[in-house]
Amino acid sequence: MAPSSANLLSSKTRKKTDSHLELIERELERRLPEASAHPPEIHEAMRYAVLGTGKRFRPLVVLAACEAVGGDPPKALLAACAVEFIHAYSLVHDDLPALDNDETRRGQPTCHRKFGEALAILAGDALLTRSFQLLGEVKPAETAVALIKELSEAAGTHGMIGGQVVDILFAEKGSGQALDLSTLDYISRRKTGRLIQASAVMGALMGTNSPAKLTRIRRFGSALGLAFQVVDDIMDNDGHLRLMSREQAREKVEGLIQEAKQEAARFASRGKRLLGLANFLLDSLST
Amino acid sequence: MAPSSANLLSSKTRKKTDSHLELIERELERRLPEASAHPPEIHEAMRYAVLGTGKRFRPLVVLAACEAVGGDPPKALLAACAVEFIHAYSLVHDDLPALDNDETRRGQPTCHRKFGEALAILAGDALLTRSFQLLGEVKPAETAVALIKELSEAAGTHGMIGGQVVDILFAEKGSGQALDLSTLDYISRRKTGRLIQASAVMGALMGTNSPAKLTRIRRFGSALGLAFQVVDDIMDNDGHLRLMSREQAREKVEGLIQEAKQEAARFASRGKRLLGLANFLLDSLST
Repeated sequence: MAPSSANLLSSKTRKKTDSHLELIERELERRLPEASAHPPEIHEAMRYAVLGTGKRFRPLVVLAACEAVGGDPPKALLAACAVEFIHAYSLVHDDLPALDNDETRRGQPTCHRKFGEALAILAGDALLTRSFQLLGEVKPAETAVALIKELSEAAGTHGMIGGQVVDILFAEKGSGQALDLSTLDYISRRKTGRLIQASAVMGALMGTNSPAKLTRIRRFGSALGLAFQVVDDIMDNDGHLRLMSREQAREKVEGLIQEAKQEAARFASRGKRLLGLANFLLDSLST
Repeated sequence: MAPSSANLLSSKTRKKTDSHLELIERELERRLPEASAHPPEIHEAMRYAVLGTGKRFRPLVVLAACEAVGGDPPKALLAACAVEFIHAYSLVHDDLPALDNDETRRGQPTCHRKFGEALAILAGDALLTRSFQLLGEVKPAETAVALIKELSEAAGTHGMIGGQVVDILFAEKGSGQALDLSTLDYISRRKTGRLIQASAVMGALMGTNSPAKLTRIRRFGSALGLAFQVVDDIMDNDGHLRLMSREQAREKVEGLIQEAKQEAARFASRGKRLLGLANFLLDSLST
């Protein structure tokens, strides 16, 4: 019996996402220094922090956004790797004893448990440095500079680091202090949301100069990024759930995903993969 | 009585170096986020790590190299700040308990003693990020990309971080293991030398496209950078002095400074400030 056209479509979509995932995994491997390069210890730690695990959500957003605006996704692979290296460095440093003090991540020992604290700190530094090195290779130079501007802003103290700082300072003050919604929103938008938004914008920059398209992608990324953090909070039973019920948090996610999907839909069939990533977030709440 | 022309010249030279220092201090202040910007804690830590202390040797090299190749030194100030931010981040991270575990630097509490380990790690990350953000502002974009390439290579695992890793691993193996000259050379050239060389190259890139001039500056920077580390070893009674006498180390410095000065002299009067920085290193051995 022939499969229904709906099934066929969804199988095609899955295949296309898989092909992006494969491209990303291969490129990440290729863009990391070889483990044997001197000094091997730091390169092993960098590879450990990036390879083998991770959903590659951010690189998938980069490629999908490139496709949505009419670009050629493989051309956005350097940008996709740069974003994933930033994400990986932030996890390595966040896991350190002085910060979250985590012993495992995704079922594996954290980088500092495996390689020691000194190498973990330096591997994070090296991934951060390598990220900008990769963006420096993008052609033309004007695009490289636009990507560097977007990523440095997103990863800096007005973005990811700023969110992390406020999160830590709040935690240090102890659970006695009430978390208010504006602080929570600040942390969520910056610690996680801003880098996901930058992923979308960077992918789009590899495919268009149109201010209108870039604005649409920026709005898509803003909604998707915040939704990602609320989903994470629901999974971890933390963050938003300190201020609202699980049902309210789920409604917030649904509203944000709705926003994101409205933006994605305006790219017509080219926006399908962006829609798919938005749906992926929603679906992850039911698993 | 009128001063001799030699005295006049040397006083002029000093004044010109002072003017570069003033430009650098003002620009560093201007290019750091304001302490009051949200979240203030991280911006205070970043400013603490950069302002108030430091010889600004690397930024002075940037400006002097720009002048030597015929450029306008104030135009190299963004590059000078970027290099100093990288230097400052590396000190903050090196001082951490997991690395050198230093409690003071230049007579002040180290960043993690003053702000705590978590903020020190993040302040280092933020300075590293801010460094590439600054370079992204350089015009034209082709020059920005050339600077980013040079700095990321110098600061990465084939440069500064690589040297630091080998240094740490050697220290961990304990003093029982003999340090050989090739390992020592590897550490010295990468941990310190490579960033000083990059300072010279980046300054030159702000003033010229001439491959011949850039090669000369690269050679100058290589000799100066290694000399800097040997001088540091002599002051600290470490490193090179584990493999040679103080007198031999001093001769090594003199040979390297001689090399550097030969390259600087080929820029005629425009190379005077480069000569001055080479002499400054030699002089610091007699104080």
